[in-house]
Parts: sequence; C-alpha cells; structure tokens
Amino acid sequence: MKLAGSYGDDSPIAAFASVPGRSAITLIRCSGKGTPELVAGIFSGGERLPRAKGHTVLHGWIVSGSGEKIDEVLVSVFRAPKSYTGEDGIEISCHGGNAAGNGVMAALRSAGFRDALPGEFTFRAFMNGKLDLTRCESVLELVSAETDMARRGAVNRLSGTLETEINSIKSTLVEVLAAAEIFLDYSEDEIGMDGEQDAGRLAGLHLAESSLARLKSLADSWRRERIYREGILAVIAGRPNAGKSSLFNLLLREDRSIVTEVPGTTRDWIEAAVSIEGIPVRLVDTAGLRSSADPVEAIGVERSRGLLEDADLILYLIDGERGIAGEDAALVSEFVAAGRKPVIAIWNKTDVAPMPATPAGPFVGMLGMSAKTGDGAAELSAAIAGAVLAGAGETGGRTETASVGTARQKDLVEAAAASVEEALKLARLQEPLDLIAPLLRDAVNLLGEITGEVSTADILSEMFGRFCVGK
Amino acid sequence: MKLAGSYGDDSPIAAFASVPGRSAITLIRCSGKGTPELVAGIFSGGERLPRAKGHTVLHGWIVSGSGEKIDEVLVSVFRAPKSYTGEDGIEISCHGGNAAGNGVMAALRSAGFRDALPGEFTFRAFMNGKLDLTRCESVLELVSAETDMARRGAVNRLSGTLETEINSIKSTLVEVLAAAEIFLDYSEDEIGMDGEQDAGRLAGLHLAESSLARLKSLADSWRRERIYREGILAVIAGRPNAGKSSLFNLLLREDRSIVTEVPGTTRDWIEAAVSIEGIPVRLVDTAGLRSSADPVEAIGVERSRGLLEDADLILYLIDGERGIAGEDAALVSEFVAAGRKPVIAIWNKTDVAPMPATPAGPFVGMLGMSAKTGDGAAELSAAIAGAVLAGAGETGGRTETASVGTARQKDLVEAAAASVEEALKLARLQEPLDLIAPLLRDAVNLLGEITGEVSTADILSEMFGRFCVGK
Repeated sequence: MKLAGSYGDDSPIAAFASVPGRSAITLIRCSGKGTPELVAGIFSGGERLPRAKGHTVLHGWIVSGSGEKIDEVLVSVFRAPKSYTGEDGIEISCHGGNAAGNGVMAALRSAGFRDALPGEFTFRAFMNGKLDLTRCESVLELVSAETDMARRGAVNRLSGTLETEINSIKSTLVEVLAAAEIFLDYSEDEIGMDGEQDAGRLAGLHLAESSLARLKSLADSWRRERIYREGILAVIAGRPNAGKSSLFNLLLREDRSIVTEVPGTTRDWIEAAVSIEGIPVRLVDTAGLRSSADPVEAIGVERSRGLLEDADLILYLIDGERGIAGEDAALVSEFVAAGRKPVIAIWNKTDVAPMPATPAGPFVGMLGMSAKTGDGAAELSAAIAGAVLAGAGETGGRTETASVGTARQKDLVEAAAASVEEALKLARLQEPLDLIAPLLRDAVNLLGEITGEVSTADILSEMFGRFCVGK
Repeated sequence: MKLAGSYGDDSPIAAFASVPGRSAITLIRCSGKGTPELVAGIFSGGERLPRAKGHTVLHGWIVSGSGEKIDEVLVSVFRAPKSYTGEDGIEISCHGGNAAGNGVMAALRSAGFRDALPGEFTFRAFMNGKLDLTRCESVLELVSAETDMARRGAVNRLSGTLETEINSIKSTLVEVLAAAEIFLDYSEDEIGMDGEQDAGRLAGLHLAESSLARLKSLADSWRRERIYREGILAVIAGRPNAGKSSLFNLLLREDRSIVTEVPGTTRDWIEAAVSIEGIPVRLVDTAGLRSSADPVEAIGVERSRGLLEDADLILYLIDGERGIAGEDAALVSEFVAAGRKPVIAIWNKTDVAPMPATPAGPFVGMLGMSAKTGDGAAELSAAIAGAVLAGAGETGGRTETASVGTARQKDLVEAAAASVEEALKLARLQEPLDLIAPLLRDAVNLLGEITGEVSTADILSEMFGRFCVGK
C-alpha cells in the first residue's frame, strides 16, 4: 500500500462505516472538500444540505442522477473543524442489507466521491490535528477489542492518557536538554561557574531519572495490555484421574457465554476459549494425551512437550484421593525449572479428600478445590489472574494510568528509555555535555514518533494500512 | 413468539441497529418513554440531552454508573413524533468491534433499557401511524434485497405506491358499497324507482369492474417481483459438443461481479449464480451429465430429469456445425410439452456456421449466437429476461407502478379480487343487493388487512417476528 501518493489529499471520499449485512441500518461515511454540496446533488430537497448546520440530521431520499429513488435515509451533517476528520463530513444512515447500501455507494461515486482507503478517515483526523498517533492507534485497538478489559485499555488511550504522559515526559526531557544546551553554547573557560553548572547537572540528573522511571513503567504496562488483548495459553496437566477433564469442564461452565470449542481438528487434546477475570484464556485439557499410559511417558510425547513449552501457565492437578506422588513433585519442579513459567499446583477432590495442612517442596501455596462440586473455583480464577499478571504493573486504576497499547509504542518507549539511561550513565561519569545532549535529543525524537509529532510516510502507511475501510 | 404480551408498550428499548463486527462504527438504536433522560444518565455532559432538539447530534462519552468511560460516541436525538418509531428516540454511534458495542449495550441495560424484540422499532412505527403494513414489509424486503431490481421493488413500496393504490381501490369499493346500501335500506316497494336503481347498479358495476382489473394487475405483479427477488433456475441442455460449457462460461464472464460458483459439492453438474438483466439466475451446465453418452439416454438419467423438472427456463443449444438433428426437435418438443416451461432454442457457433433463415417446428424464433466469440450474447440476455418475465406485468415504470412484494399481500389481493368477482357475477344475474353487499364488505376488509387498518395480533406477530432485532 502506497500512502504518500494516495492518502494525504482532501478529495471527497466515501466508505461503509458499519458492516453491510442483514441489519436495520447501514452507515456510510463521507468526508472531504465539497462533501455537503456533492451529497446535495443526490439528496431529495438537497438545497437544504449546503446551508445545514453542523451536528444536525436531515431526513430524505438518496436519488440517482435520473431521479430514481435509491433509499430513504437520514443524513447527519458535520462541519469542519468539528468533525471526526476535521473536514466537512456527512454520515448517511441507510437501510441494512446489501442492495440499499450498494445503491447509495454507487450514487455517491457518480456524485464524485471515491472509495476511501483503509484508515483514511482516521488518517485525515491525524493530519488535521484531531487525534495524535496514540489515539489513532487506540481506535484500531478498540475495534479489535474482544474483551471488556481490552476495551478499557483502548478507551484509556483514546481519552488521551498515553498522549498526555508521553508529552509530559517529553517536555521534562526538553527542559533537561535546554538546561544542558545553555552550558554547551559556552566553553567551560567562558563560564567558569562550576558551582552553578554542578547544580544544573544535579537538577537535570534528577529530572532525567524520574523520566526514565516513568518510561520504564510505561514499557512494563505493555505486558499487561497484551495479556488482556491477546490472552494466554493455559494447559491443564497431571496424572491420570487427577480430574483434568472435570476442571476443564468446570472452567467452561463458569464462563458459559464465550466458550468456543475448537471444531473438527485432528488434535487429540481438547481446547476451548474462556475468559478468566477478563483475561482471554485458551484452555487446553491434555487428558486425551495417552492418559492411560505412564504419565511421565505420556507427558514425554512430542505433542505434549510442544503444548507445555507454548503454555503461559500450567495448572497442575494432584489427585487428592491418591495424594502427592513422587512423580508429581518431579513434574512440577521440571515445569518450573524448564520453562520458568508459572505453575499453579491444585489439590483436587477436597470434597472427599481434605488438603494436607503443610505441603512441602514445589507445593507451597498449593490451592485446594473440588472440580466436581466447584468449591474453590473462584480462588482458582483469582490465582490464575494473579500468576499471569505477576510483575505486569499495577492492577488498580487501569482506566486512569497511562499504558502502551501497541508493540510500536512499546518499542519506541523502550528505545527512548535506553537513550535516557545511556545519557544518565555518561552524566554520572562526568562526561562532556556534547556527548550527552544528542542522546537526550534522540529520546525526545523517539517520544515525538509515538504521538506522531515526528513521523514518516512509511510509519503512517504501515499503521493506517491495518485499519479497516471506513475508519 | 408472543406479540400481544411483549410488544405494544412504549417502554424504553435498545438494540444493535448495525451488524456488530470489525467496522468503523456500530450503531445502537433506542426508543420509548423517557429515552433522552435515561441516556442522559450514562452520557458525559448528559444534562445537554433532555433539552436537545430533535435531529441534532451531540458528541461525548458513554460512562458507566461508576463513572468509567465506556466509549466515545455520537448521540443523535429524535423527538416524537418526528422519529422512526414516532416516539422519542436516540441513536448512538459507537466504535465498531464487539467490546465497545457490548459495553454500551450493558450501560443502556443498567440505565433501564430492555433489549428490543425483532422488528419492535418498526412495530412501534406501525402502531404510531408512521408506516402502514405494506411499508413495514417493504423495510424487511429492502434489508433482504440482494439485487438492485429487488431493491427497486422494495423502495417502490417503501415510498407508498402500494399503500396508495390499495387505499384508492378500497375507497372505490366503499363508494360502490355505500351506493348499494342506500337501496338496501329501503324495500323495493318503498322506492319503486327502478330506473334510478338500475342507473346506480350500472355505475356500481362499472366501478367494481375497474377495481377488479386493478386488483388482478396487482396480483399479477407478484410473479415479477418474486422473480427479481428469488431468481430463477436456468438449465443449459443440448447434445454433446453443442457448446454448453462455452455458453456457461460466457454468461459467467458477462457478469463477473457476482459469480459465486458452488464450492465442493458432490454434484456432477456445474452451477453458478449470475445476474441477467437484474434477474438472479442459478445457471446450471449439464455438460458433466454423461456427456459422452447418447444425449437422449443422458437426459433420461434421474438427476438430469430432476434438474430439468425444477428448471424455470431451459436454454437448448444446437450445434451449428452439425445442424438440427431429429433428436433436437424431439427433445425441445418434449420439454415444451412436458413442463410447459419456456425453452429458448439457440443456434450456436454462428462464427463458423450461419443460422438457417427459416428454421421450422419448435425452432421458430431460434436465436443465433457464438458462445465462443460472444456474438449474440446481449440478445440472449434480453431473450432470457423476456421469456422469464412473459406475462408477469409491465416492464416499464417499475418504480412508479404499484406492485405487491410479499405472498401475504398477494394472497389478500387475490382474495379481495375473488370477492369482487363473485359480487359482480351476482350483480349481473340481478341477484338481490343483500347477497352482493357482504361480498363487497369482505373485499374492503381484506384490503384493510393489507395496509394494517384491519389487523390481528396473530398477523402482526407473524410479520414482525421475521424482522431482525434493531429494525
């Protein structure tokens, strides 16, 4: 997709903004130079349109050039700069189904609109200063959000928390840089005020350190955001008859609404998508993996290995009726050691076999439950969320705290942090300012890239090309 | 679906009006008592809402009861009676994707809205006198329309042509009935004005006859409407090497846009959906049906029989290079005689073998073409449309002429026509008015059912239950 050539003008564009299909309404969005006048030419009583105020709705018919009625519609008028794109815009609410929307789109084309490119409306909003890049990206995040927690993160950035935080860190660094550059402009001989310079250095160091902490906290937030958006793979393991299938089914029942069992695959394990404390979890029951054979051998088979290697979390079930066997300890230790991934050890069947008071070794913090009665299920959900999110930033106040929502943002934040860190290192070694200043300037530019203050056609093309048409 | 109990109040309802999915915008529609005030409770700066004028748009955020931002939205306000339902209404334009729309719907539910039933918005529009039943049905037609011609028929009825025609016929019949009932009120002795009565009878007869003609024309329009909406099955037949596959491919190429070859079926014929002169055509190439065997025997096989029996139209190809064989005449005659279905005889390969000037027998009106060069393709399309639509009402002016769009409408029109016809028969036999008047009253009531002036909960339940939610 070439951006520079095709995006970036203000020619009139139109596109479906809702999914065309069997629904009450299909929404078509138009924007660009002359939009109200062009739509007026295919709208009954079109003379009302060019003088309609922004944020008003007109009722009428879209008519073809030959005067044929295409569809009865509502037309919402938006006036620059108070519109999504910042240009004059119109939204046409026509009947659902394919024929009505296609008819209206055909009429718009004949009136002089061209089909919008993916993300072109949001691109124009960016170019016209309506949205910075973090908020543009949050629009895409929001449309892709599958869970409520993913929506929250996107809404957080859409409301500008990340933009505000980045701009705040950036102006702090600019402040440090400005102070540093005062001293750069003069040779040390000319100034000869080492005391003042030292004070300035100290103040600068302090500001740079706080900026670095804030950048690191932002970079850390990515893990949590990604977990909520992309979810995790949790594998249920344990010896035969430990109750793996019962636990699998229990977790499915607890979250009846979004279960989507993987259909007709050739896999011999069972997989389902569930939501646990807002985290999308691909849950795998390995019960089908040669469950009658020796468990060590069973777990040794190739597919099982692959699954456990890919897992973000292992739920290891102990058969309470049989107690902890030597192989249980060996297996749990192996998982923990090998993949350095979280393992939750679960003592199952508490309804018939109470959990011993002081389990030792890898079983410290073991959770007791009954997959049969559901007793302890809430504690398990909390433990799963806790294990997955451990070290992934704060839990509270997600809607107010700034966080990064895309790999692009996270990479730039990390790069800026690395520059600031290097600058701090040199400063502490009392290196000359003309080595330190460029590093701070790099950091400022990297932060400018996040919000789009500094951008190239390549970045924009890559970003907006991933949008859907009509956005 | 129980209609009487659940529909029919004015409680606040909400539903997705566009298909939720990966798109720029999802539209949610609200209507009913207190709608602006209820939405105000979950809308940033909600105090603007209760005093917002109709047909205006506000920008803001939907917020949860706990103050959490759910999504940034546009809110369009509609004031009774100038709204779709005739009630106060609000349309919320939120971000596409699943999470944003679900979040807003959840907020609306907590604010006091219940989920709308299928067709409930249109039902309210009907109950509040905004749309008669023919226009309600046209909304459903429009949403289901797959082709431009189907859309046109629906738009025709949506703009009120059928409603107007039905009401006009009805008032004519009421006029006839009123005149007749004047005489019913008096015994013949009392009036004794046979001359006047005869004149009245004659005028009434004339009006009833014209009404009957209009009703019959309406009933006839159903066939055309159904053809444009549901399409036809056209089967290509002919001896081996007559060029069946070439013709099939030619017709596909001519209509590249909406070809949908039937994937991975076990059938041994090829089928594709094409649009010919706006008519959806399921086109079948029987070339695969034992094409190497004797064609009479081939066509005799079970599956071929079934196809030809189901066909609405047969395209019979003559191999121009070999000329008309005896079996061609036999086959064409058989098709025509057996199914009484249209057969278009086609002399193929005119590029190498010109069509004889005077073909005889079943080949009168034979069409010459070259499936290889495409010569004659336009004439074939016209012939197909002509054959399919023969006797199905006028071709011109479809967007102005009233037509029926549903089996319900057609059945009621036919029943009304039957009553008027019976009344006319009795009138011509000089039967007493008290036998004729009830028949005319029946006809008037049947016409009232079409527009919904006369309706029962059963009819409404059946009709609106077929709508999608949000309509």
